[in-house]
Amino acid sequence: MALSKQNFTGLVLALVSSAFIGASFIIKKQGLRRAAAISGVRAGVGGYSYLLEPLWWVGMITMIVGEIANFVAYAFAPAVLVTPLGALSIIVSAVLAQIILKEKLHPIGVLGCIMCIAGSIIIVIHAPREQPIKSVLEIWSMATQPAFLVYVGSVVVLVFILVFHFAPRCGHTNVLVYTGICSLMGSLSVMSVKALGTSLKLTFEGKNQLIYPQTWFFMLVVAFCVIMQMNYLNKALDTFNTAVVSPIYYVMFTTLTILASVIMFKDWDGQGGGTIVSEICGFIVVISGTILLHATKDFDRNSSFRGSQPSSPTLSVRLFNGNGELLLKEDEENISPGSMCARRQ
Amino acid sequence: MALSKQNFTGLVLALVSSAFIGASFIIKKQGLRRAAAISGVRAGVGGYSYLLEPLWWVGMITMIVGEIANFVAYAFAPAVLVTPLGALSIIVSAVLAQIILKEKLHPIGVLGCIMCIAGSIIIVIHAPREQPIKSVLEIWSMATQPAFLVYVGSVVVLVFILVFHFAPRCGHTNVLVYTGICSLMGSLSVMSVKALGTSLKLTFEGKNQLIYPQTWFFMLVVAFCVIMQMNYLNKALDTFNTAVVSPIYYVMFTTLTILASVIMFKDWDGQGGGTIVSEICGFIVVISGTILLHATKDFDRNSSFRGSQPSSPTLSVRLFNGNGELLLKEDEENISPGSMCARRQ
Repeated sequence: MALSKQNFTGLVLALVSSAFIGASFIIKKQGLRRAAAISGVRAGVGGYSYLLEPLWWVGMITMIVGEIANFVAYAFAPAVLVTPLGALSIIVSAVLAQIILKEKLHPIGVLGCIMCIAGSIIIVIHAPREQPIKSVLEIWSMATQPAFLVYVGSVVVLVFILVFHFAPRCGHTNVLVYTGICSLMGSLSVMSVKALGTSLKLTFEGKNQLIYPQTWFFMLVVAFCVIMQMNYLNKALDTFNTAVVSPIYYVMFTTLTILASVIMFKDWDGQGGGTIVSEICGFIVVISGTILLHATKDFDRNSSFRGSQPSSPTLSVRLFNGNGELLLKEDEENISPGSMCARRQ
Repeated sequence: MALSKQNFTGLVLALVSSAFIGASFIIKKQGLRRAAAISGVRAGVGGYSYLLEPLWWVGMITMIVGEIANFVAYAFAPAVLVTPLGALSIIVSAVLAQIILKEKLHPIGVLGCIMCIAGSIIIVIHAPREQPIKSVLEIWSMATQPAFLVYVGSVVVLVFILVFHFAPRCGHTNVLVYTGICSLMGSLSVMSVKALGTSLKLTFEGKNQLIYPQTWFFMLVVAFCVIMQMNYLNKALDTFNTAVVSPIYYVMFTTLTILASVIMFKDWDGQGGGTIVSEICGFIVVISGTILLHATKDFDRNSSFRGSQPSSPTLSVRLFNGNGELLLKEDEENISPGSMCARRQ
């Protein structure tokens, strides 16, 4: 127990981020409903009146604030702590959807929420402490240690194989191809986001890191990885049903991110066996909760207000969300089988 | 982490117990199937040929061995550890049913199994150490400490109110009345079983405890509580669907047992806040897994080999199972809506 001050700041930021991101979807949905009520034209059938609806913009800003909080959280706490907590945003969405939008949550979905919370608490209790970092050069030496270079090398090779061999052949039939590419790149995104975030934090604390080329290199890596991840995420979403993509992606992305973080930042060094096992169990519990929530969304998909979303704000959502949770929120907006089919060709 | 030797013995016994009890149901089911195949008369429609089927008896003996292991486990490890692990027997049943009986497990049921395992691991990692006890007199002083007497007093008052006020009025309409009585009595059963088990263990170790009247008193309490518990359990099962009774009973029984154990044996003294919270989370996860498994049994209830059980072996099962897990196994055998209706009047 006994969270360090750093970890605590990161934890609070991650929770705030989940709350904001979770809430943003409900606010935007409310905005879309209002816009549709006023103009009589639903966004899904070509209306853009939602752009004139202040509530929609409030939702958009809420989401951006949430994403920034999430980005900053990585600068304070280990990825092993921050990444899995992203699952909490779907709980916030689910609960708010029930209260504000009066969408009914399936009892098994409630169980999914409880799972996510219980698992998150276990992860938080057993999270490793963030190592104090004094300069971007320290991160650089972590990133260039042989073990992590092997990880990066494997990721690059796997991504190459997936992109050039499997994607053309079975990218449209096997859901693991595109989601695999996103997840592999996603783990590198988070590592570079953490490196960049830490450098910027140090800079704001007065220790200017912008003088080091390494900081700028990490910035390039962030840009490249995030764009690559987003690109294949869009492909995955356009090809397969979000309800299928989301849990698979969440599981692969979070697992690979934890793996990368454990290798690069040595998060598990100095932790007891019991603590590590507890962390893994907590992670499994969160994953199961996420799957449950998605499975039950499937149960009553047709009964709720869905599929009335335009593609444009959906796309903007995808571009803003840099780090993997987005899918979990994404499908709050965009999963009517009809619209998926329309976008498939 | 670092289980004490005592805890480890208790843990192994609890796991063996779950394995045996879980397996016993599958073996008995196999025996019933064979008996039905040979005689052409199913037990459910009046046949008793299963009594001539060796396999059925193997199942019965397996179950008794499992129950004895469970009883002995309480003598070695805290109830906080042993009781929730009872949920593992449904996993053993579910897995064996899939392998041997070729019953299909719903994917969400698989998730339920994973939850039960993950939760159990968390509980095991954070379980308190069993306090070394030298004499039944020590247990007696624990049982007569004011805090535990208040607990016993509250249980007795609540049971009285439930039995004499609520049972006649709404026992047949509200599932919480009978299950409440069982669970309250069940928590006292486990405490007295633990006291008796520890005394017998000491006796076998050469420190004769049978000379103390307290040992005999605990024996009486065990007999009284178990009979009372079984009696109301039968009432609950005869009145309501097992699939409804089981999860409610498991949750209430396990929660009250943990509460009783924490008060009487001070299991949580000297444990850190994080450890206790982890234990509670693990417990919540196991409960959720149990609920999931029961919920998914509901999904395909009509498709599997059920409802062909006679009432007599069912009754014997109930009598043998003294400590609360029984319901979870019970419904492996006894939940066809048809037979429930027949028994309802």
